[in-house]
Amino acid sequence: MHILITGAAGMIGRKLTTRLVTDGALAGRPITKLTLLDVVAPSAPAGFSGAVAASAADLSAPGTAEQAVAGRPDVIFHLAAIVSAEAELDFDKGYRINLDGTRALLEAVRSTGDGYHPKFVFTSSIAVFGAPFPPAIPDDFHLTPLTSYGTQKAIGELLLADYNRRDFLDGVSIRLPSVVVRPGKPNKAASGFFSGIIREPLSGQEAVLPVDESVLHWHASPRAAAGFLVHAAGLTRDQLGPRINLTMPGVCCTVGEQIAALARIAGDKVAARIRREPDELIIRIVAGWPSRFDARRAVALGFKGESTFDEIIRIHIEDDLGGKIAA
Amino acid sequence: MHILITGAAGMIGRKLTTRLVTDGALAGRPITKLTLLDVVAPSAPAGFSGAVAASAADLSAPGTAEQAVAGRPDVIFHLAAIVSAEAELDFDKGYRINLDGTRALLEAVRSTGDGYHPKFVFTSSIAVFGAPFPPAIPDDFHLTPLTSYGTQKAIGELLLADYNRRDFLDGVSIRLPSVVVRPGKPNKAASGFFSGIIREPLSGQEAVLPVDESVLHWHASPRAAAGFLVHAAGLTRDQLGPRINLTMPGVCCTVGEQIAALARIAGDKVAARIRREPDELIIRIVAGWPSRFDARRAVALGFKGESTFDEIIRIHIEDDLGGKIAA
Repeated sequence: MHILITGAAGMIGRKLTTRLVTDGALAGRPITKLTLLDVVAPSAPAGFSGAVAASAADLSAPGTAEQAVAGRPDVIFHLAAIVSAEAELDFDKGYRINLDGTRALLEAVRSTGDGYHPKFVFTSSIAVFGAPFPPAIPDDFHLTPLTSYGTQKAIGELLLADYNRRDFLDGVSIRLPSVVVRPGKPNKAASGFFSGIIREPLSGQEAVLPVDESVLHWHASPRAAAGFLVHAAGLTRDQLGPRINLTMPGVCCTVGEQIAALARIAGDKVAARIRREPDELIIRIVAGWPSRFDARRAVALGFKGESTFDEIIRIHIEDDLGGKIAA
Repeated sequence: MHILITGAAGMIGRKLTTRLVTDGALAGRPITKLTLLDVVAPSAPAGFSGAVAASAADLSAPGTAEQAVAGRPDVIFHLAAIVSAEAELDFDKGYRINLDGTRALLEAVRSTGDGYHPKFVFTSSIAVFGAPFPPAIPDDFHLTPLTSYGTQKAIGELLLADYNRRDFLDGVSIRLPSVVVRPGKPNKAASGFFSGIIREPLSGQEAVLPVDESVLHWHASPRAAAGFLVHAAGLTRDQLGPRINLTMPGVCCTVGEQIAALARIAGDKVAARIRREPDELIIRIVAGWPSRFDARRAVALGFKGESTFDEIIRIHIEDDLGGKIAA
């Protein structure tokens, strides 16, 4: 089986690549080739015995998407995207990468004209939803994005559903919760603190909390996110039916509950490394985000997230810190 | 006030043009100029004292959208679209006209760069929804189109909402019910019989009914559709809030109730001109269509449809038959 991953150099792309290499197979078939694309060339994964083609590519550039599917990958994981903050700051770039790039890839599949019919897994986002919300957002809640990023993801969902309905490919799209704990350095994303308040204290650094502890949000670990993608690739057309855009399960908890979990796992001294410094801009942005979903369809289809935030912290310690914390 | 209408040669475009010329004003301001575009040049309306520029234009062709807004129309009614059946038969043409054309017009507005900020009224469709449905579809029901046309309209809604949110224009989009009774000759649209079973008998012709009388559907007259567009153009940003895509009110009735209304108004002899001839393809297509909406937001915002199907028939007799029926 040949697998294409776009956005393979990103955090979730790397977690997915590692997971696939570890499994050695997908949906019961051995993985023989990985094609890894990103705006910067992804590094080849260690320990993979099959062929790897890793290169830099901008799918919105003419001919690039056609080239990406020239090797007829059996499964396409389309993760490539400009993140929320950048799509908001640069309107043209966001639409070019997130909308035109996705459409170019779909069109490249359709236009092969030789019976090519891959599995196409698209990462969408809970940013397709915008306030005001009901207490728990049901699977049939309307698409009301309040960012250009969310708009672009919602359009990607609609395009994929139409290409799936027309039988140009087997499509499935998964709306990821906020993925925490993101490994690596802090970034400037408005949601960055959800990871920062766990990651920094665990490595002996101070973290800034810009919002109130009562803020409620929806989380899954990077390990769960990779697991959602793998599980999605194994679902059949019959299992999915026409509604192929699925909200993933997650852990709904407050920032206060996140901090309490950190204290339980790593001790009060670690949890004390969080400094409260309210930021009005972030407070306002976060207030427009969804906080709780009733992800019944995904659960019925076998998707599994974490049950507690404690699990999410333990996964970070295991997968990203080699089991060690700075007590 | 300068008004641009795309798709001005279509049935709703002509009804809207006539209504605007009759009113002489829109949102309290006198209409001084009409720019009318369509793939075939629309005819200039009778009895209009202002300037009229009517021309053939394909908005998806390079430079055409820029030219369409070069005169800085204060209000844009964007009605131009490939209809449902054609968008389903010709995938490329549907996306080119319905998606690329709409996006080109939005981009033309945004790229003026001189503070231009029109009111932009988009005609969407109940085809943005697809079965299975709840008994009455609420305003917050998700977008699940089951046609390429519905997908393209849903994407248009999302784009318009983002351009509105970014304040490039004042947007509003209205999801029209099935508009009946359409004047003129029968067409091959799957929904054509909803008009045909009223229009043909009233003009002394036989009509074919391809579905069961129990089929339930959602209707508004062409007069109401023009009224929705005019009302939408008068709504302010504050009235609309961020959710600018609105399902319009309509009359929900069965085909049997349509026929009973026809018999009440025009007599049994007229109603007897309907021949039952089941068509499995049309039966299947219609089964996927929505039938009943709970259009609370639109009603609260002052949109008015008809209350009974009798009214819809009477409007057809008044507006399209000069008050005369073939008894």
